[in-house]
Amino acid sequence: MAKNITPRSKDYPQWYLDVIKAGDLAEHSPVRGCMIIKPQGFAVWERIQQDLDRRFKETGHVNAYFPLFIPKSFLVKEAAHVEGFAMECAVVTHSGLEPDGKGGLRPKSPLEEELIVRPTSETIIGHSFANWVQSWRDLPLLINQWANIVRWEMRTRLFLRTMEFLWQEGHTAHETAEEADQETRRMLDVYADFAEDVLAIPVIKGEKSESERFAGANHTFTIEAMMQDGKALQSGTSHNLGQNFSKAFNIQFQTRDQGLEHVYTTSWGVSTRLIGGLIMTHSDDEGLILPPKVAPIVAAIVPIYRKDAEREKVLAYARELLVALCGEERVAKAENLGGKEILSVVLADGRKVVMDLRDTLRPAEKFFHWEQRGVCLRIEVGPRDVEGDKAMVVTRHDRAKVLTEKLAIDADWLQAKLASQQGILLQRARDYRTARTHRVDSFDELKSKIEEGGFFLMHWDGSRESEEALKECKASIRCIPEADSLETADGPVSTREPGKDPISGKDSAGRVVVARAY
Amino acid sequence: MAKNITPRSKDYPQWYLDVIKAGDLAEHSPVRGCMIIKPQGFAVWERIQQDLDRRFKETGHVNAYFPLFIPKSFLVKEAAHVEGFAMECAVVTHSGLEPDGKGGLRPKSPLEEELIVRPTSETIIGHSFANWVQSWRDLPLLINQWANIVRWEMRTRLFLRTMEFLWQEGHTAHETAEEADQETRRMLDVYADFAEDVLAIPVIKGEKSESERFAGANHTFTIEAMMQDGKALQSGTSHNLGQNFSKAFNIQFQTRDQGLEHVYTTSWGVSTRLIGGLIMTHSDDEGLILPPKVAPIVAAIVPIYRKDAEREKVLAYARELLVALCGEERVAKAENLGGKEILSVVLADGRKVVMDLRDTLRPAEKFFHWEQRGVCLRIEVGPRDVEGDKAMVVTRHDRAKVLTEKLAIDADWLQAKLASQQGILLQRARDYRTARTHRVDSFDELKSKIEEGGFFLMHWDGSRESEEALKECKASIRCIPEADSLETADGPVSTREPGKDPISGKDSAGRVVVARAY
Repeated sequence: MAKNITPRSKDYPQWYLDVIKAGDLAEHSPVRGCMIIKPQGFAVWERIQQDLDRRFKETGHVNAYFPLFIPKSFLVKEAAHVEGFAMECAVVTHSGLEPDGKGGLRPKSPLEEELIVRPTSETIIGHSFANWVQSWRDLPLLINQWANIVRWEMRTRLFLRTMEFLWQEGHTAHETAEEADQETRRMLDVYADFAEDVLAIPVIKGEKSESERFAGANHTFTIEAMMQDGKALQSGTSHNLGQNFSKAFNIQFQTRDQGLEHVYTTSWGVSTRLIGGLIMTHSDDEGLILPPKVAPIVAAIVPIYRKDAEREKVLAYARELLVALCGEERVAKAENLGGKEILSVVLADGRKVVMDLRDTLRPAEKFFHWEQRGVCLRIEVGPRDVEGDKAMVVTRHDRAKVLTEKLAIDADWLQAKLASQQGILLQRARDYRTARTHRVDSFDELKSKIEEGGFFLMHWDGSRESEEALKECKASIRCIPEADSLETADGPVSTREPGKDPISGKDSAGRVVVARAY
Repeated sequence: MAKNITPRSKDYPQWYLDVIKAGDLAEHSPVRGCMIIKPQGFAVWERIQQDLDRRFKETGHVNAYFPLFIPKSFLVKEAAHVEGFAMECAVVTHSGLEPDGKGGLRPKSPLEEELIVRPTSETIIGHSFANWVQSWRDLPLLINQWANIVRWEMRTRLFLRTMEFLWQEGHTAHETAEEADQETRRMLDVYADFAEDVLAIPVIKGEKSESERFAGANHTFTIEAMMQDGKALQSGTSHNLGQNFSKAFNIQFQTRDQGLEHVYTTSWGVSTRLIGGLIMTHSDDEGLILPPKVAPIVAAIVPIYRKDAEREKVLAYARELLVALCGEERVAKAENLGGKEILSVVLADGRKVVMDLRDTLRPAEKFFHWEQRGVCLRIEVGPRDVEGDKAMVVTRHDRAKVLTEKLAIDADWLQAKLASQQGILLQRARDYRTARTHRVDSFDELKSKIEEGGFFLMHWDGSRESEEALKECKASIRCIPEADSLETADGPVSTREPGKDPISGKDSAGRVVVARAY
């Protein structure tokens, strides 16, 4: 077992931090609550960005960029919005620094109006939309922004909750309430498909209760994933903002029949939090496991030799394998960069295959190194493999070792192995979630079971009182699920069949998903 | 002539703003000095990013992300650095907002230490490097960051100088001074190649004089481009920081012979300013011209018909052309998105071909629309073209109309036309620069000629006094050129031949590039 990683069973939060450290993904910064996303972690974010960006463009959206700073007066315009974000603001009050007379520097010129570092951009984008939209012909307006966001958080955790984080925020304006509703649901579907196809994270789509809505939204939809401690992670949200922001910012358009109406807007976002979700869905006590589609490094070749006499032969053989996987041209390109003890070959899709040429580490240390970085396949090559025209292939997700014919190893083989691993990780996560999803029909049952974690399908009468009562056991309603039924450990359970709210005893139209959450 | 664009000869700064507005690239935001990059402008930035990012990765760099906020105490650590940036800082002093008792909100909790919104990241990255580097085996460290930057500017101009801008900043650490020097020059070459190959902007590479160096650098290298008013635009810089930051942040490493030494660092960056350079290099009095490699829309098909009877026939023919350019699959995908009067087909490389189906605009208005957005090719199709199996092709860079056989128009034809246009734009910009580059051998000559704009190759003795004297005519030394000779209107002129500084009368080792600048 890895000595630098606390087992999940012993201390789950510490395990999470240990996996991040061992995987070299991110670290705390000297600025409280902000993180440094290290190259290994940022490469995962780049793969997430590329895939999502393509999906946004395929659904007709275009990217734009709006200011980092929001005038204080903008935030105030939508009452629910300012209430939600006032306490989380970072406030710029001055420009310039000047000597303070004590050898230090102090802020110099007070601003006429304080500026807020954006906690989200509905207000500043709403102001632009009011200028951009004149007639129904200008609609729909389908904008996305990739940006950094600041929310002053007291308790932070790498990726999951940080003062500054990276995200995308979609902002759209529509002619009718129906179109805004369709857009909100369409983007939730994009998120859900992305989570399952690319991150191999199964999610439950549904609507948030009123108390969990985004500040200023009429409806908030969410995708909820189950982490390996049985807790829920809200992984993406899509908000139907109705006419709340269009009225606050006066976004009006001339209708088809020459009238004047406020547009209907939506917003939707996912963030670097997804990387936290990835870690907590797939990794094990040995460290990081990444689904191949977002793994920056998909394979690591580790040559093994004891004597100098073996060195040349093993290295030549390992290079042949590297060429079989990546092609001579790409390998030569990597070699020409020079200087590095780890040869890093970039594939057509941007992912890498590496060959570990370090002479300072023992083979076991190298195995460990790549395993903890979540590399999907490790290919070990020793003198005996050279003799037998073989290689030992170790798959990260199950750590299984398979002695493989050299001839079988090529680019197609690599893609097939990765596709298989991607599918297994998704199925494993699905099975895990199903095994930990339960129907509960009494509050006591919920209270007794929730310590172990998991999702609980429970009747809810829709009241604030029942929702509040869940806080007793630190649980919350994660969503009112979209699906008519959900898989549980005991088979499918209907979410639409009427029943009784076990807390209030009142009538309930269906079951909701209850869990503890990040 | 375009009525919404002031001619260059009349008012060049106004022309620049008019081109941006007509091209729908960007606009001023309600936050003074910040801009909103609109979808058309942001798509240009995305193309710039993609190409540069590839070049950075091919030269061995990896991306990472560091905090937006920098503790005030960090900025102070490098003396020259803080002097350069203190006046330009945006300062966060509080978190949270609370009611001010007058119906408004005021900043709530003062921070223990004020935070600076990054004006550049040498300090916060230097702090990390000190943790990351232990031994010579950890070097070189080759990091890049794509980020937003804030510098409090009094006079701003869209793209060229804004309070917030987008950029990339490379930060590297090396074992030896020589390696840092090589890296600084390598990245300058990457910038120069990119500017010429992709932006079609010819640049002069060279070193900045001491007074124009980056705050904290030992050497600053630059690429300087000539705008159409004869002024210089500093378009990218690469800094050799020596051990200044490694000493300030204590970035030490164990050397190969077990000693302890400070690393040698570099930094280099280009920003959204490049979009300003693109506009001022290529555009004309009719509006935006974009080099095809960064044009978000490469071709616009405009169907023309007067009677409803013609409509169906013309649209079917126009669609055939669209399919010939983009392939049936991509066209069908665009059609399935639905709802829009402009059909927008995305090519494999991310650029678009559009078909303008709007019924509300006259053909001339549509021509105008696409021309002002810098679309490389306009393909007009009317009933007579349908009869004759032809189309009228208009190239944006010279507005030439060529009646073209329908059969000739396909994907290969498109690529060839675009490649040709790319080459012509670069050559045109080169010719323009050569015609406006002059040798000057007296200060009076410089003063009399500089009003007209242009680059002037002048001897310089290396003194601060001569450099200061240039301010008399609002000129500055743009760089000490790397090339041994530069093309001028009167043929090549040596930059290495010794001579006399015309201002001081003292000996000079060679000629420098003098110009007015943005």
